[in-house]
This record gives sequence, structure tokens and C-alpha cells, in this order.
Amino acid sequence: MLAIETEADFAAWMGSIQARIEAALARNLPGAQHAPARLHQAMRYAALEGGKRVRPLLTFAAGELVGADPARLDIAACAVEMIHSYSLVHDDMPCIDDDVLRRGKRTVHVEYDEATALLVGDALQTLAFQLLAEHPAAGNAAAQLEMLRTLAVAAGSRGMAGGQAIDLEATGKTLSQAELEFMHVRKTGALISAAVKLGALCAGPCPAALEQYANRVGLAFQVVDDVLDTQASSATLGKTAGKDSKQGKPTYVSAMGAARARQFAEELRLGAHAALDTLDHPGARTQRLRQVADFVVLRKF
Amino acid sequence: MLAIETEADFAAWMGSIQARIEAALARNLPGAQHAPARLHQAMRYAALEGGKRVRPLLTFAAGELVGADPARLDIAACAVEMIHSYSLVHDDMPCIDDDVLRRGKRTVHVEYDEATALLVGDALQTLAFQLLAEHPAAGNAAAQLEMLRTLAVAAGSRGMAGGQAIDLEATGKTLSQAELEFMHVRKTGALISAAVKLGALCAGPCPAALEQYANRVGLAFQVVDDVLDTQASSATLGKTAGKDSKQGKPTYVSAMGAARARQFAEELRLGAHAALDTLDHPGARTQRLRQVADFVVLRKF
Repeated sequence: MLAIETEADFAAWMGSIQARIEAALARNLPGAQHAPARLHQAMRYAALEGGKRVRPLLTFAAGELVGADPARLDIAACAVEMIHSYSLVHDDMPCIDDDVLRRGKRTVHVEYDEATALLVGDALQTLAFQLLAEHPAAGNAAAQLEMLRTLAVAAGSRGMAGGQAIDLEATGKTLSQAELEFMHVRKTGALISAAVKLGALCAGPCPAALEQYANRVGLAFQVVDDVLDTQASSATLGKTAGKDSKQGKPTYVSAMGAARARQFAEELRLGAHAALDTLDHPGARTQRLRQVADFVVLRKF
Repeated sequence: MLAIETEADFAAWMGSIQARIEAALARNLPGAQHAPARLHQAMRYAALEGGKRVRPLLTFAAGELVGADPARLDIAACAVEMIHSYSLVHDDMPCIDDDVLRRGKRTVHVEYDEATALLVGDALQTLAFQLLAEHPAAGNAAAQLEMLRTLAVAAGSRGMAGGQAIDLEATGKTLSQAELEFMHVRKTGALISAAVKLGALCAGPCPAALEQYANRVGLAFQVVDDVLDTQASSATLGKTAGKDSKQGKPTYVSAMGAARARQFAEELRLGAHAALDTLDHPGARTQRLRQVADFVVLRKF
């Protein structure tokens, strides 16, 4: 296939998965007509119509590799995206980042109020685990427990929430590249990595090479985020740009400069591809995973 | 057995379960020496050395009825108590109840800071689900998924978090007894009821009569809480007394007066006993459940 055709094909696939996950989220979130209506409305506001859906793209791309049932992937992707949405709602609150703009919309605590934002995040987290416990997302109950465990470890105090705690403590400090990596592997990498693993777990055990791919893409995502924070506008990002340096947060740009950070992201992208090479055999469907890795690193927003 | 002996026997049992759950929580919470240390320290501060452990008492009493393995009950009780602890940490935050005292200690956002309190609650919730996914808490994986589902439904937007949202909206309003019940069945009742069900699920399906017992005890707990809020001191309660009326919150006392509320709690206590009667056959171990129902209603703190 010519490069231009590949690109158009990827864009079409991405659009179809984004529409699919939007519908799955809409279906799996409580209806705004059910009591407590305001909370349910705010949960839908927080989780719907937003973002690039990078994690669901990874879940579906991994699922394609292993031939997973798309109905199972819906559940896995919804669960991961709900955890991600909850973390954004809480991170935006006044006591953490105090941000007013997210995914091009007013943040939940601005659109509603702080107490509602707190409960929205809490309830979205619960719902993620409820979905995975309620729906047959894997071939058997033991595999489903493994999915639940994977998601919980990624989200918890040694994963995403822990990374956020380290980030808070690091504000105003200078971190080494190793310390930055320790933080970001948890704050962003853990959940991105879980998105990949859950996609594979819908069909069977997750291959080790896929875990390697996931870890590299997860870290690359954060490096690129740091670069974009300094170089793109708020309108392009759909969230407040330039806030890392304003808040004195250590980033890959502050640690190694923008040019070296871009180069590091490129190395991670190639590393992600290399991990997939070991899975390559005639008929292996690694193409989507390669495209998503490229998208994560080469995106402009 | 004479009444006085029964009472001493119950006090001894309660003390032993409280010590047991304290040890199980200490074992299952991340060590304060692991990074992020401050977050882990604060999680332990929030969950350890606190409260009457009513939910774990119910889990163990239900487990005794069905002959459940105590090691499984440890996991179930820890998971429920972590959800309860997370909800207290978040409810105490400035954007909700803005409280400074809890279980006789300074609240987490006062002892640490608001951002840490937010993350402590988030991470305790995650850990509850992680525990149930990681440890063999039931006879097989399908039953364990049922436990996870039960806990998630009880904690989520149609359970505890939803009840909290209704409570927020109700502040300053007068509610009918039916509306109060709708709120409290969710806010407090759902998790108390889950504590009972999870204890039974450690060994097999939960008998319908036990669910009835659980619902009645759950509601009774809240009615008594409302009464104690107006009649006991902060020192006795270990949390700020009299704050419901100060915050204009509708309670059973404001809805029906203290005397009628006490009587309602007594009716629920007898109803809980009546539910157990249907389980009574020679050798049935309903005694602990009866004692816990009595303790919940007759407690002074």
C-alpha cells in the first residue's frame, strides 16, 4: 500500500473506533434520566464527546492482533476510558491542577461544582470495575479477574494515582531523567499499558512482546505530551497549554530540552515497532498497533 | 446463656474481629516505605486505627452463618472497609462536608492536604477492587466476580456515591420519610448491605433472608446515626456532632423527631431479627448477626 493510502486507511479506522467507543460509553453510562439525575448527567458530560480516545484505540489495535471479539473489546475499552476520564476530572479540580478547560469544554467542577466533580470521578472509577465484573469481557471468569487485577494495579497507588502523587511532590523541583521516568511510567504509562494488555486479555494471555510495546508507547505518549504543552496552543490541545512550566512542573522538555525530547519520543516509537517485530509472522496483524504508535508520537494535539 | 454472659461474649468477639481486621488492613495496605511514601502513609492513616468496624463485623457475622473461611472473610471485609474509608476521606473534604475530625483524629485533608486526601480516597477505592480481584475470596472465579459486582453496585452512582449526591442536593430542603429512605438506602444502606452479602458470598450464594436482614440493619444504622448526631458529643462520636442540623441536612430526627426515630430504629432491629428467624433451624448460627443488629441500634457512639 502507498503511504498516503495507509494514512487514509488509518484515519478511517481511527474514526470508526472513536465512534464505536462513544456509542459504547453512551450505552454503559447511567442514563441522565435516572436518579440521581445531576450526577449521572455530569458523569456523561465528563466521559462523552471527548478526547482522542488513545487508550481505546490501543485496546482495539491489540484486540485486532489477537483476534478478540469486538463486543468484549467494547467493555475493556470503556473500563479503561472511564478510569482515564475519572482521573482527568479529579486532576482538574482546584486542589490539584485547578484547570478550567478540558477536551475543549469547561471542566466538570466549573460546569457543575466541586462536590459534583469529586463524586463524578469517584463514580466513574467504580463503574469501570463494575463493567468488567458484570460483562463477559474474556473467555472465562478467571481471565476476567486477571483483567480486573490489571486495571486496578494500573490505576492504583503504584500506578496512575501514585504517579499523580509523585507529580505533586515534584512540583518546583528538578528531576533527573530517571526520576521523571519513574513518575511518568506510573502517571500515564501504567494505564496506557493496561489499555493494550486488556485488549489482548479479551482473547487470551498477553504476549510479552506486546507488554514491551505497551510500555514504550506509554512513555512516548507522555514525552510528546510534554513537548506539545510547550509548543501547541490551548485551542489545538483542547486543554490549557503551557501550564507545566507555569506550575513549575518537571517535564521531559525542562529536563532535556525540546529537541532531545522529540528525539527520545522517536526512539521510543521505533522501540515499539521493534517489539512488534518479534510477533511478526505471516498473517500477524501488527499493522494497527504500528499505526497507533506512530499516531501517538507524530500527533500535533 | 444469661444476658450478661451473652453481652460479654459479644464484646469479646467484637474485639477479636476488630483486631483481626486491623491486622488484615495493615497487611493489605501498601507499606509506608514504598514510593510514593507520603501517599501510602496517608492511605494507612485514613484506613487504620479507626472506627467501630461495623461493616467488617457484619461480614464476619454473615460468614459465621454460612461457615465461610476466615481468610476469605478478611479479604471481603478489607475491601468493604477500604470503600468505606475512601468515602469518609472524600466526604470530609472542604467541597463536601468540610470536616476536621474523624474517628477521633484530624481528617486526612487537615493532617496532610487536600490534593493528598483526593488521591488517598481514589487509591483506597482502587485497592478495594484490586484485593477482590487478586485474592481467592470465594470458591471459584465466577463467585469472585459476583463479589466484585456486588461491591461496585453498592459503591457506585446508584449506591453510595449516588446517595451522597442526593444528600448534597437535599441540603436545606425538607424531605418526606420516603425521600429520606431513598437517599439513605443508597448513601449508607447499600454498603452495609454489601458487607453482609460479601460475607455470605465467600462460601456460596447469599440467602434472600440475609439480604432482608442486611437492608434493615443498613437503614437502622443511618437512623441511629441521625439520632446520635443530635444527642451525643463530638468526643463520644469521634467526629463533629450536631453538624447535620447546622448544615441544614434533612435527617430522620428532623423528619420525625428523635423519639419516633428511635422507635423506627427499634422496629428495624426487630425486623432484622425476624428476617433471621426464617433461617433458623437447629444448628443455624444466626446469633452473631442478631448481636450485631442489636449493637448497631443500641450503640451510644
